[in-house]
Amino acid sequence: MITENTKARLLDGAVVAARIKQEVQDEIARMVETSGYRPCLAAVRVGDDPASAVYVRNKIKASEEVGIRSEHHALPESTSTAEMLALINDLNQRDDVDGILTQLPLPRAIDETTIIEAIDPAKDVDGFHPMNVGRLAMGDPAALVPCTPLGCERLLLESGIETTGAHVVIIGRSMLVGKPLALLLMRKGKGADATVTVAHSRSRNLAEISRTADILVAAIGQPEFVRSEFVREGVVVLDVGINRVGEQASEKGYRIAGDVAFEEIASKTRAITPVPGGVGPMTVAMLMVNTVTACENQTELAA
Amino acid sequence: MITENTKARLLDGAVVAARIKQEVQDEIARMVETSGYRPCLAAVRVGDDPASAVYVRNKIKASEEVGIRSEHHALPESTSTAEMLALINDLNQRDDVDGILTQLPLPRAIDETTIIEAIDPAKDVDGFHPMNVGRLAMGDPAALVPCTPLGCERLLLESGIETTGAHVVIIGRSMLVGKPLALLLMRKGKGADATVTVAHSRSRNLAEISRTADILVAAIGQPEFVRSEFVREGVVVLDVGINRVGEQASEKGYRIAGDVAFEEIASKTRAITPVPGGVGPMTVAMLMVNTVTACENQTELAA
Repeated sequence: MITENTKARLLDGAVVAARIKQEVQDEIARMVETSGYRPCLAAVRVGDDPASAVYVRNKIKASEEVGIRSEHHALPESTSTAEMLALINDLNQRDDVDGILTQLPLPRAIDETTIIEAIDPAKDVDGFHPMNVGRLAMGDPAALVPCTPLGCERLLLESGIETTGAHVVIIGRSMLVGKPLALLLMRKGKGADATVTVAHSRSRNLAEISRTADILVAAIGQPEFVRSEFVREGVVVLDVGINRVGEQASEKGYRIAGDVAFEEIASKTRAITPVPGGVGPMTVAMLMVNTVTACENQTELAA
Repeated sequence: MITENTKARLLDGAVVAARIKQEVQDEIARMVETSGYRPCLAAVRVGDDPASAVYVRNKIKASEEVGIRSEHHALPESTSTAEMLALINDLNQRDDVDGILTQLPLPRAIDETTIIEAIDPAKDVDGFHPMNVGRLAMGDPAALVPCTPLGCERLLLESGIETTGAHVVIIGRSMLVGKPLALLLMRKGKGADATVTVAHSRSRNLAEISRTADILVAAIGQPEFVRSEFVREGVVVLDVGINRVGEQASEKGYRIAGDVAFEEIASKTRAITPVPGGVGPMTVAMLMVNTVTACENQTELAA
C-alpha cells in the first residue's frame, strides 16, 4: 500500500478502531454486570440495495462483537413513509431499544427528512436529527454526533495530531461529513479549537486553498480527486472517500478508491489514512460508541 | 467617517435596512387587508441591564414602525428559571403571538439553554433553538436563522457582492454570528455557495489566514482588532462588532467602535461596512423579516 520512498506515517484506522471497540466491549461488560442491562441497537433498512445490505450486516456484526444486542428490520422496497414511521414510533417507545439507525439512502417514495425528524433524538445514533446537529453546533456535550466525522476527530486525537490552532481544510460540505466535522473541529477544547475551512465543488482556487491546510480532509465522493497540487509538504491527510472504480483485471470488476490519489501524494504528507482501513473502520467503531452513549443518556434521563 | 483618499465603497446597512423594512411594512399591510390578522412579536427581558433595555426598546420601536404588534414582558432580576419558563409556555400556547424573543444575556440564576430550548421553534425569531440551528445546517428553508448572520448575508446580496465560489473568512465562532453565518454561506444557492473559513482567538497565523479572504467578516468582539496586516487589497469587509471604548472627550464617556480599525484599512478595501450604520440596522430589519416568516409558517401549519 505504501511506497518504499515515502516518509509518511500511515494512520491505521483499523488498529485504532479495534482498540476503541475493545474499550466499548469492556464498558458494556461492566454495564451488564452492574445493571443486568445490555444496550440494544435497532437497524432499519428498506429495499433491496445490495450495498446497503452489506453496510447494515457489517454494523450488526460489529455490534454483536462488542456485546450490543441488535435487531435488523428489513422492510420491502414498497414500504410507505407512514409504514416506516409506524416502525420508528414503535422503536422510539420501546424501553429495550437504545439506538435506532436507518440505513440511507431510503427509496425515493419515502420522505427522508420526515423519517430523520421522527427518530427520538436520544436514540439517534446516526446523529442526523436537527436537534443533534443544532446541539453539536452549540457545543452541547449531549449531542449525538454523526459517526464519520466523530471517527475523523477521534483518529486525529488518538494519533496525537494536534488540532488546536491548526488549519483544517475540509473538501466537501455534506451533512454526513463536511458540515458536522467542521462544527466538531471548531468547538472549544481538546481535539478541537481548529481554524476550519469548508471548501467544495463550487470553490474557486480549490487546490490553492487546500495547500494552506495543516490537516486536509477529502470528503467529496470523487475517486482520487485530491492530487499533488492540492497538498503541501508535511500536511496530514484524512481520506473519507469510498468509491468503486471499474477495473476489469480484478475479480469483482471494480476496486475501492478513496478521494485521494494516495500513491501520488503519500510521500509529501506527514501522515495519511489508507483506503480501505482508515476512516471506514473508525465510522463503525463510533456507531458502537454512540449506541453506548445513547443507552447511558437514556438511563440517566430515566433515573 | 470615510477618509478622502479612500476608494472603498461604503456598505450602508441603514439604507438597505430601511428598504427591507419598507418591504416588510407593505407585506404586513397586505396580510392585514386579506386576513385581518397582524403579526405579533413578544419580547422578554429579565433584570435591569440598561443596554438590554435599550436593545429591546429599539426592537419594539422598529416592529411598531412596520406594523407588527408587540408585547414587552419585563421581568425582575429575581425571576427564576421556572417563572420564566411559565411565561415562555404561555407565549408558546397563545395563537395571537407569532414571534418570541428573549433578550440575552439572562441573569446568571436563569439557565439560558433551558429557556432557549423551551421556545417553540416555530416562534423562535432569534433562531437560537437547536432545531433551527440544525435545520440551518441542513439547508432546510423552514429554519429561522439568527438575525445578525441573516443580515450579513442579505447585505452582501443586496449590495451585489458575489459569494459563489468566493472565500469568506469569518473571525469569531459564536453561536450568535460566526457559526450560523458559516452555515448560511456554505449552503447551496444564490447568496451562498462560498468557501468558508471560521477562525478565532486560538487560530495560528490569524492575520495570514484573514489575508486570503475575498470577504472578511469580523465578529470577535474586540475593538479595532482587524488592522492593516489582516487585509489584502480589494477585500470586502463586514464589521459585526459593537464595542464601547472609553473616551473622556465624548459626552457619554465612551464611543462605539467596531471590530475593525476602519480608518486604517478602509482605503485597501473594495467595500466596507461602517460602525454604526452597517450590520447593526440589518440585524433589526431581519428580526422584522423573521417575525413575518414565523407568522406565515404558523398560518400555513394551521391551515
